[in-house]
Amino acid sequence: MITLSSDFGSPYPGAMKGVLSQWTDSQLVDVSHELPRQDLRQSAFWLRETLPYFPPAVHLVVVDPGVGTDRDAVVIRAGGHALVGPDNGVLLPTARALGGKGFELFRIETREEATEGTDRTGWPPRLASSTFHGRDVFAPAAGRVHEIGIDALDDDAGLHRLDDYESLRFPEAVVGESAATGTVLAVDDFGNTITNVPGSFVTESFGGSVSVNGDTVPLARSYAAVDPGELLVTVGSHGNVELAVNRGRGDDGFGLTAGEDVHLELV
Amino acid sequence: MITLSSDFGSPYPGAMKGVLSQWTDSQLVDVSHELPRQDLRQSAFWLRETLPYFPPAVHLVVVDPGVGTDRDAVVIRAGGHALVGPDNGVLLPTARALGGKGFELFRIETREEATEGTDRTGWPPRLASSTFHGRDVFAPAAGRVHEIGIDALDDDAGLHRLDDYESLRFPEAVVGESAATGTVLAVDDFGNTITNVPGSFVTESFGGSVSVNGDTVPLARSYAAVDPGELLVTVGSHGNVELAVNRGRGDDGFGLTAGEDVHLELV
Amino acid sequence: MITLSSDFGSPYPGAMKGVLSQWTDSQLVDVSHELPRQDLRQSAFWLRETLPYFPPAVHLVVVDPGVGTDRDAVVIRAGGHALVGPDNGVLLPTARALGGKGFELFRIETREEATEGTDRTGWPPRLASSTFHGRDVFAPAAGRVHEIGIDALDDDAGLHRLDDYESLRFPEAVVGESAATGTVLAVDDFGNTITNVPGSFVTESFGGSVSVNGDTVPLARSYAAVDPGELLVTVGSHGNVELAVNRGRGDDGFGLTAGEDVHLELV
Repeated sequence: MITLSSDFGSPYPGAMKGVLSQWTDSQLVDVSHELPRQDLRQSAFWLRETLPYFPPAVHLVVVDPGVGTDRDAVVIRAGGHALVGPDNGVLLPTARALGGKGFELFRIETREEATEGTDRTGWPPRLASSTFHGRDVFAPAAGRVHEIGIDALDDDAGLHRLDDYESLRFPEAVVGESAATGTVLAVDDFGNTITNVPGSFVTESFGGSVSVNGDTVPLARSYAAVDPGELLVTVGSHGNVELAVNRGRGDDGFGLTAGEDVHLELV
Repeated sequence: MITLSSDFGSPYPGAMKGVLSQWTDSQLVDVSHELPRQDLRQSAFWLRETLPYFPPAVHLVVVDPGVGTDRDAVVIRAGGHALVGPDNGVLLPTARALGGKGFELFRIETREEATEGTDRTGWPPRLASSTFHGRDVFAPAAGRVHEIGIDALDDDAGLHRLDDYESLRFPEAVVGESAATGTVLAVDDFGNTITNVPGSFVTESFGGSVSVNGDTVPLARSYAAVDPGELLVTVGSHGNVELAVNRGRGDDGFGLTAGEDVHLELV
Repeated sequence: MITLSSDFGSPYPGAMKGVLSQWTDSQLVDVSHELPRQDLRQSAFWLRETLPYFPPAVHLVVVDPGVGTDRDAVVIRAGGHALVGPDNGVLLPTARALGGKGFELFRIETREEATEGTDRTGWPPRLASSTFHGRDVFAPAAGRVHEIGIDALDDDAGLHRLDDYESLRFPEAVVGESAATGTVLAVDDFGNTITNVPGSFVTESFGGSVSVNGDTVPLARSYAAVDPGELLVTVGSHGNVELAVNRGRGDDGFGLTAGEDVHLELV
């Protein structure tokens, strides 16, 4: 199985699937092509919350605002999975989540110059376009990794171990006994506003209230615990404190977006 | 084969596919993740118009405004298919369409408390989140149903026959000789406005006209029978009277949306 | 493998997948269901830029503003691939790209009248709806083509060779030594504005500038070569001159949309 994740929308994922199909007829699974566009931190969050639910697989990931610059293309081996994508940090939180015993990075060799003789499966990747490495670099690399097997990356001529790479870490919340200060990591499609404050800060207080940047709001286990249209604070499926509106949008209700600060006080 | 339908947009379906892939490597087919959000009646309509075109399969369906409340999780066996989702009625019209000889419901047992020892495939579902039963309850159940086989549901320890369940029926139109009063059941992505008036009310009159809430409009077999931008009334692919605009949006043209009344008179 | 491309959005592709699954359990691959709606030229462009990346396959394509009129339904055999869709020209540029030695068209026979006895797999296609040939005509035809094999189309009773068909050609740019006049062929999801001017017009001048309809803009190999929010001209992944904004939308930046004229002068 090869999974695909990108911020491409449509129709660019189609060409990546075409290239992957040159390598294998095993199943291609779309994870998302609507990752927050060119937003490494939000995309990294969603990848970390999603890819670890798969059994070991090759995951092609393209969120790549630096396409065509000299940033490397990498394969990360972690927990039996392989992550293929740009060396811009977007893969790192997932690598840490998958790799209990750590993870290993390999740089994907790309050709210095366009070569007429590139084989039809595109390995090593030809120079080709400067604007669509998803098709021209990452998809052939993912196909290649799938073909040789995740355990055999060390022996592939087109892959080189890399110790120096771009990292990406989510900011950590400051959590006290009755107050916490954090950041909005992501807003989902429903408008649920996901903070970096651990759910444990509120789980003992369900049924009570919490002040969010000064406004007092009910703390509830599920959206439907408050009336439609009402604000609530809950613990989302990722285990973090989430700001929501039952059958509405939490980001609008709380006036918050990704990257903004949140101050919570139990009341 | 397991199909997936939800109102999740992106990226939540990815985690459900991950969980399903823990159970099987058979094909996962996206039906839609853009079902009308938290709208049980419109979603039920689209499911009934879509899932019966499949050969017998396991269909995972998550449109679940009551997630985290005490509504049951169910599997419905109908016509050789299995429908897995919340007990809120959204599956019922499809169950009736599939189950010529009726259908059977099974309640999915969920654990009373979070259990550390949940196996990696998540069966029976662990308590886990109160906000993402698609991942934590329904996907493991669909994986389990696929594994044991649709015929063997009775023998599974985690499934219990259920006689009392939420129903959902579409309103019926009142149809006379030359007039009909109905309701808009759904509006599709093109803006085609689908009523509950049976197509037979107009099929004898193609080429003539019909009054829609007082405005007289041509009755035509296909969109392209009128000029671009012009209103028409036709019979849609579901067999019902549909209000449309050739190369435009019928909902805008007629000023109607799902749930509103429509009065038709042949003229 | 059967690929699916359409301008349907959601949920209509689901019913097509259901019908295809009646014919085969081989993989169904979504290329795009967000092709520019009812826009034959832009859709034809994206199909030509995407489908040739696949290994030989059956490609179901439905962009069909004339659904329900008497336009034919066709299968095109080209380069080992089969393209199934409406005879409105949308398949032609892809057929030319795939078919080095040319291509062959077959008309799909449809029944004159609805027949109760249509087999469950729908071949030859029943009359059925006038509004959803994707489900009722093209999907059964694609399933049938997949079943009998692309090499055996001549022998199928429901397919007839056709010499007269709708064509579609992209306009050609007029390219001189230092000036070129062309047209915007398509705008992608990122807002990148793709012209029909061959990339070779600018590749010697990277690092310099070009005037676009009178405004002077840097010529660069990659988006990130200019600051975020800045205009640039580059060569896109299709090999054509593309008007872009780094981390922004080129169509907004240049005030252009598909079909409009572009005059370029090297400066």
